[in-house]
Amino acid sequence: MNGGEHVVAEWLRGDGPSADVVMSSRVRLARNFAGVPFVNRATRAQREQVLSMAQDAIVGAAGSRGGVRWIDLCAASPLERTVLVERHLISKQHAKGEEPRAVAVSAPDERLAVMVNEEDHLRLQVMRSGLDLSDAFAQIDAADSAIEHRAEYAYSPRFGYLTACPTNVGTGIRVSVMLHLPGLKLSGEIDKVKRAAQSMSLAVRGFYGEGSEALGDLFQISNQTTLGKSEKDILAEFELSIIPKVIEYERVERRKLLEKRRPFFEDQVFRALGLLRHARLLKSDEAMQLLSHVRMGVTAGVITDVDVKTVSRLLLLTQPGHLQQIAQREMDQPQRRVERAALVRRCLA
Amino acid sequence: MNGGEHVVAEWLRGDGPSADVVMSSRVRLARNFAGVPFVNRATRAQREQVLSMAQDAIVGAAGSRGGVRWIDLCAASPLERTVLVERHLISKQHAKGEEPRAVAVSAPDERLAVMVNEEDHLRLQVMRSGLDLSDAFAQIDAADSAIEHRAEYAYSPRFGYLTACPTNVGTGIRVSVMLHLPGLKLSGEIDKVKRAAQSMSLAVRGFYGEGSEALGDLFQISNQTTLGKSEKDILAEFELSIIPKVIEYERVERRKLLEKRRPFFEDQVFRALGLLRHARLLKSDEAMQLLSHVRMGVTAGVITDVDVKTVSRLLLLTQPGHLQQIAQREMDQPQRRVERAALVRRCLA
Repeated sequence: MNGGEHVVAEWLRGDGPSADVVMSSRVRLARNFAGVPFVNRATRAQREQVLSMAQDAIVGAAGSRGGVRWIDLCAASPLERTVLVERHLISKQHAKGEEPRAVAVSAPDERLAVMVNEEDHLRLQVMRSGLDLSDAFAQIDAADSAIEHRAEYAYSPRFGYLTACPTNVGTGIRVSVMLHLPGLKLSGEIDKVKRAAQSMSLAVRGFYGEGSEALGDLFQISNQTTLGKSEKDILAEFELSIIPKVIEYERVERRKLLEKRRPFFEDQVFRALGLLRHARLLKSDEAMQLLSHVRMGVTAGVITDVDVKTVSRLLLLTQPGHLQQIAQREMDQPQRRVERAALVRRCLA
Repeated sequence: MNGGEHVVAEWLRGDGPSADVVMSSRVRLARNFAGVPFVNRATRAQREQVLSMAQDAIVGAAGSRGGVRWIDLCAASPLERTVLVERHLISKQHAKGEEPRAVAVSAPDERLAVMVNEEDHLRLQVMRSGLDLSDAFAQIDAADSAIEHRAEYAYSPRFGYLTACPTNVGTGIRVSVMLHLPGLKLSGEIDKVKRAAQSMSLAVRGFYGEGSEALGDLFQISNQTTLGKSEKDILAEFELSIIPKVIEYERVERRKLLEKRRPFFEDQVFRALGLLRHARLLKSDEAMQLLSHVRMGVTAGVITDVDVKTVSRLLLLTQPGHLQQIAQREMDQPQRRVERAALVRRCLA
């Protein structure tokens, strides 16, 4: 992954269904190999064994369908790991570990990623730009079957797929959608959405998952439990009922702002653009918040000389890891703030 | 005073000595006619008499030296009076009164203004852009003599010129300098300057005199008492000692910021410029603060595509009165915020 490659990650492409509100859709499966202890119980040798089984199965399964990049995380530099986290290809936890672990990523689209030796032996995920859970599920289901064809999964006829954490037992599926909700944030209605989601046992999280703040008005909504429901039920509930309601709610708030408080709306989005085009120092969180407002202005047709793709690229490239990778050197925080502001000015000039 | 005329007031021209720090110099004299009670003791008829004496003397004195505009404030609309306050030609108190009162203004330069029936019968003032108290004093001294040639002033051989308020008795002179001190404000050193000034019995006030906040980092420093000191002493102390020290202090702070914290300095001034160029709603105070930072950036040579004159014009034209006069209609506050932002964008495009 050098200069030219990281143009934009799948989840930031900015297209796909309902891309004005939905950044990306993600489906994840938790799987473990039969006959090997779960990761937290496994010896180093057993983890090495998992790595080897996984590499054989994943590379073998991918074989005919295109390239797969196998990344040994122990060999990867801290900066490379940070970049993978920023691209949402591995979790923070997976980046930090010391034990044998890896990630396999479909190349060059990065839609499919398999973390090996994270909480489970395998964590498969497929991401799609926009609201596209069905296609994401079709892809992950195919990848899952191809791997299962080459290795035996831990499976109980009574419970389903066995996982390290009981909340994942059963289908092992987690479905999540990253939503851009600046309208609900500005109007203050976002708390109602959060309460409604919680009452439906859905998790509402920030940009980097569990415990992270909702930077840039980006919220992840995901299911919490998988036992007792089929994949199809979970997917259908999300794609056809829950998410469309949130999308509509957000659109209504944006319309209200545009129709009833147009000067305020325009002021918010153009101030954000003005700061991004002029600042000489930019913190990461501020950049995300400003880019969030610009994205809203672009999708509303108020800002016409910037496109969504540029905003999406900047959401990714202004992250600390990507910033250093582009500059091809390590930078401390003050240097990054100067570099981030310079990058943003160049891209929005 | 319509569209084309109010391009810029003398005190905002932005040139003259030390214009990087000194906005303007002002000398004021308090005078009363002999044989007529002070304004607060005068009957309506006596105030009318003062008006008539003043008009004869001032218009007569100006006669050969150029135009003078006589403005009857009772006949002036509230908007016209607000515009005069914003141009620093009358005080807020003078704008609000109900009794017979007027102001005479030298046209078209507006350097000399004489308020009639404010606290004293006559309050003469001369303003100059930059630090130019000597020239201002020479002009006001000549105007004062020319008026005294045509009317008798209340004068005591023992006390000097008699005035309504004892602090003005003697020479009746007040000297003030409007300083732009964003460097001292940003570094937090401004409080030391204030304390030093107070210990020298100088008044430090905001943009609109007594009780007003230091909007846009603009501070007025003026002498408090006039008894027992000659005009020359007061002027010399100000122009040669006190003000040069403050100017140097401000310049040192700006240099420090530029040399040691250049990214921070640039960030501050360019963010201000970015907001001014993009905002769709601008409050008056915020506009002044942002213009203040832009002015600092321009005089430091950091912002190169804006000139000081444009900043000065905007400092004046973004005031509520001027804004409505340009638009040729009355506007409520929300409308003014939209109009102000639009005006600023046009001028800084």
